[in-house]
Amino acid sequence: MDICIRFGNKCKSLREAMNISQEKFALQIDMDRTYYSSIENGKRNVSIRNIEKIEKGFGITTEELMRGV
Amino acid sequence: MDICIRFGNKCKSLREAMNISQEKFALQIDMDRTYYSSIENGKRNVSIRNIEKIEKGFGITTEELMRGV
Repeated sequence: MDICIRFGNKCKSLREAMNISQEKFALQIDMDRTYYSSIENGKRNVSIRNIEKIEKGFGITTEELMRGV
Repeated sequence: MDICIRFGNKCKSLREAMNISQEKFALQIDMDRTYYSSIENGKRNVSIRNIEKIEKGFGITTEELMRGV
């Protein structure tokens, strides 16, 4: 499976485990809501700076975010 | 320290452990040599698809590549 899809699935699963909406999570990490949504949908070749924003939102390391991706 | 610099340092350290040149490594992973060099120098906001190319070149997972980054 494409790495963008696998990464998006991981983000979705972590966000759902936190029980918050895409909108609220995107707001927390200062990312456009539609951009964050397209990441979860595997449509973005996300950059390492945005990966860093996302991991900080989840309170985990890059290594942990990439586990299983 | 900036995540691009930390990522570049990690790539450099893994490549040096393999004892191959930037040029040879870039060729192996089908990436422009000067682009790969600028990644090691922390000057690129590298994308997840390029991260995938690099990890495959090192024969490791994304998680392993991101360990300590």
